[in-house]
Amino acid sequence: VDGADGSERPLELLPYAVSDDAVVVAIGEHCLDLTAASAAVGSAHAPLFATASLDRLLAAGRPAWDAVRAEISDWLSDPSWQARLEPHLRPLHRQRLRLPFTVADYVDFYASEAHATNLGRLLRPGSPPLMPNWRHLPVGYHGRSGTVVVSGTDIRRPFGQRRATDADDAPRPEFAASDRLDIEAEIGFVVGVGTQPGERVSVDAFTEHVFGLVVVNDWSARDIQAWEAAPLGPFLGKSFATSISPWVVPLAALARARQAAPSAAAALLPYLVEQEPWGLDLTLEVRVNGAVLSRPPFAQMYWSPAQLLAHLTVNGARLRPGDLYASGTVSGWRDDEVGSLFELYRGQRFLADGDCVEISASAAGPAATRLDLGSVAGTVLPALSPAAEPPG
Amino acid sequence: VDGADGSERPLELLPYAVSDDAVVVAIGEHCLDLTAASAAVGSAHAPLFATASLDRLLAAGRPAWDAVRAEISDWLSDPSWQARLEPHLRPLHRQRLRLPFTVADYVDFYASEAHATNLGRLLRPGSPPLMPNWRHLPVGYHGRSGTVVVSGTDIRRPFGQRRATDADDAPRPEFAASDRLDIEAEIGFVVGVGTQPGERVSVDAFTEHVFGLVVVNDWSARDIQAWEAAPLGPFLGKSFATSISPWVVPLAALARARQAAPSAAAALLPYLVEQEPWGLDLTLEVRVNGAVLSRPPFAQMYWSPAQLLAHLTVNGARLRPGDLYASGTVSGWRDDEVGSLFELYRGQRFLADGDCVEISASAAGPAATRLDLGSVAGTVLPALSPAAEPPG
Repeated sequence: VDGADGSERPLELLPYAVSDDAVVVAIGEHCLDLTAASAAVGSAHAPLFATASLDRLLAAGRPAWDAVRAEISDWLSDPSWQARLEPHLRPLHRQRLRLPFTVADYVDFYASEAHATNLGRLLRPGSPPLMPNWRHLPVGYHGRSGTVVVSGTDIRRPFGQRRATDADDAPRPEFAASDRLDIEAEIGFVVGVGTQPGERVSVDAFTEHVFGLVVVNDWSARDIQAWEAAPLGPFLGKSFATSISPWVVPLAALARARQAAPSAAAALLPYLVEQEPWGLDLTLEVRVNGAVLSRPPFAQMYWSPAQLLAHLTVNGARLRPGDLYASGTVSGWRDDEVGSLFELYRGQRFLADGDCVEISASAAGPAATRLDLGSVAGTVLPALSPAAEPPG
Repeated sequence: VDGADGSERPLELLPYAVSDDAVVVAIGEHCLDLTAASAAVGSAHAPLFATASLDRLLAAGRPAWDAVRAEISDWLSDPSWQARLEPHLRPLHRQRLRLPFTVADYVDFYASEAHATNLGRLLRPGSPPLMPNWRHLPVGYHGRSGTVVVSGTDIRRPFGQRRATDADDAPRPEFAASDRLDIEAEIGFVVGVGTQPGERVSVDAFTEHVFGLVVVNDWSARDIQAWEAAPLGPFLGKSFATSISPWVVPLAALARARQAAPSAAAALLPYLVEQEPWGLDLTLEVRVNGAVLSRPPFAQMYWSPAQLLAHLTVNGARLRPGDLYASGTVSGWRDDEVGSLFELYRGQRFLADGDCVEISASAAGPAATRLDLGSVAGTVLPALSPAAEPPG
């Protein structure tokens, strides 16, 4: 395809998405309609693209994932295919993209040492910022899969209870629209192949189960979360919305980005020790209303995605196709590397109505280029009126 | 149906379940195959039962739920239907029942004051047992919907990290099979009708969205949970399995059980104030290997299921058909009323391999009878070998 070489979406990337009526794959400034193209050429993989969803491809498993990628790569690089495929190429920027797969369970981790440290300092000043467990296991929790939405979905500012104090300084709740609405810039990993109950996924079996990654914005209402979260963790402060990029980047596109995660230098329980490192040198970029606020370095994430999955399943919890687990906020140690406004502004400033947040990710590509791993955008809508409490 | 009057499953109850090939409804010691019967008599509701799942019925909504119940009630009480329905009656005890619906999101609350107080005393001795938020909002968190299983499913003892201490008394993890495996006796509420993003469900709209209830055992590995849960709450200590009863009891069967929940006496934010009380006077019974350990009183739950749902959605998080939210452990103040072994034995005794746990629930029925609301059973399987750590 003209212009793909040297672009941010070369043959090495080949991310998948879902438009209104087809599965598509991106190449340069175009995308190929896989639903139409695979049917037209009589590909054996056509059934995987027969519905406008990645669900079938996800469940097909590693050998099929590799075979599909090889076939598409052949189509796009061998000129003899050009005439047959050209009718199925579309301009990339014209696509309206949907949630690419059915989200089964959604888990969110807390795998950045800088982020956990920054939040510990802000929320528990005077105490050690990291909990005693933090360096021994990836801390995580379940989120709400039913409110995972695709990039471009507007995000309504939520209402909820937050802590106030009465005249005696005793805590009491007040009900209001959140005024500490924040982002969390993350990378999410998409499970294709499930497991049986009781089965564990070893760090080495990561690529048999995980298809690829998406960019995530885990919207967070810090005031709601701070009041509700003791002792069982985040709930309504997170559950109103989580946005993901429409493009799912296959693991095979990330070969150049692989490196050891920082936890490789620590003494870990054996189930968390990687032989083949799956730390990833990705760079995120956070923009609010077009201005770059930070460039969080995924390479500093303490736990790799293979370690996260090994931990998620070490108790025998089964996986299903479409399970999504996110890294937790990606933050580096510098102010221009943090993945949340809470860290950047130390709790002094949050999102305003109308703010448009865009988080993108990239990785090293061939010959000093960058691979565009996609982006997730959303605009904050004002809280629904009545701004006061709903009738009891 | 002979014997239904005066039984634990009279015409007033009519709970639904799913066998290998049909939706069924229980009456006395029998069940009626609704898939076959509704097709045979040409019922307008036959499409709701055309697949072996409650998913279609759940999504059909309150008017359909009421019409279906009225129709079944007519079939079972008017003798003119007897000859046509008799071929579709089966002995109740012979049914093999499956997970009755597709679980969308699973949320677990913490709505018993006695339970929260008991756990606070055990886990944070010397501190106030209830957190400052507890009387102001229903504390809850998301669980893993992919590991919700039907009664009768064996439960594999999970492995995981737990806290140990080294020679200097510093915390360190060890990896082992849980030896503090526990139960939590709960009631779960099944959402039928979903909402749009941003929509709140008021306490008064509870019956428009919730179809009915199931009995829940939220299996819990206390040692895994204690080490992992700071600061984001329960994760692997809960995610290996949650068991539910196969029978879903419609809200319409619970009219006699309704009463004000204890929170009705408190000053609450208006969105939590009930006009029509949905507290429920149900009695649970916990048996381990046949011996009754306790009879937890659901009437003492501080928050009603309508309040739980109003809170779950107050931030605009959308509901989907099949969402399941559970009450949290049902405990009363007496030892013979607690819903977990942790409370009963103060952390000194937990489940052994081979233990069979059965939790049942009942409510007042006509003329001093009790309605059988179903039960949830499971047997503990030993942890998978190797008992030691998996290879790293």
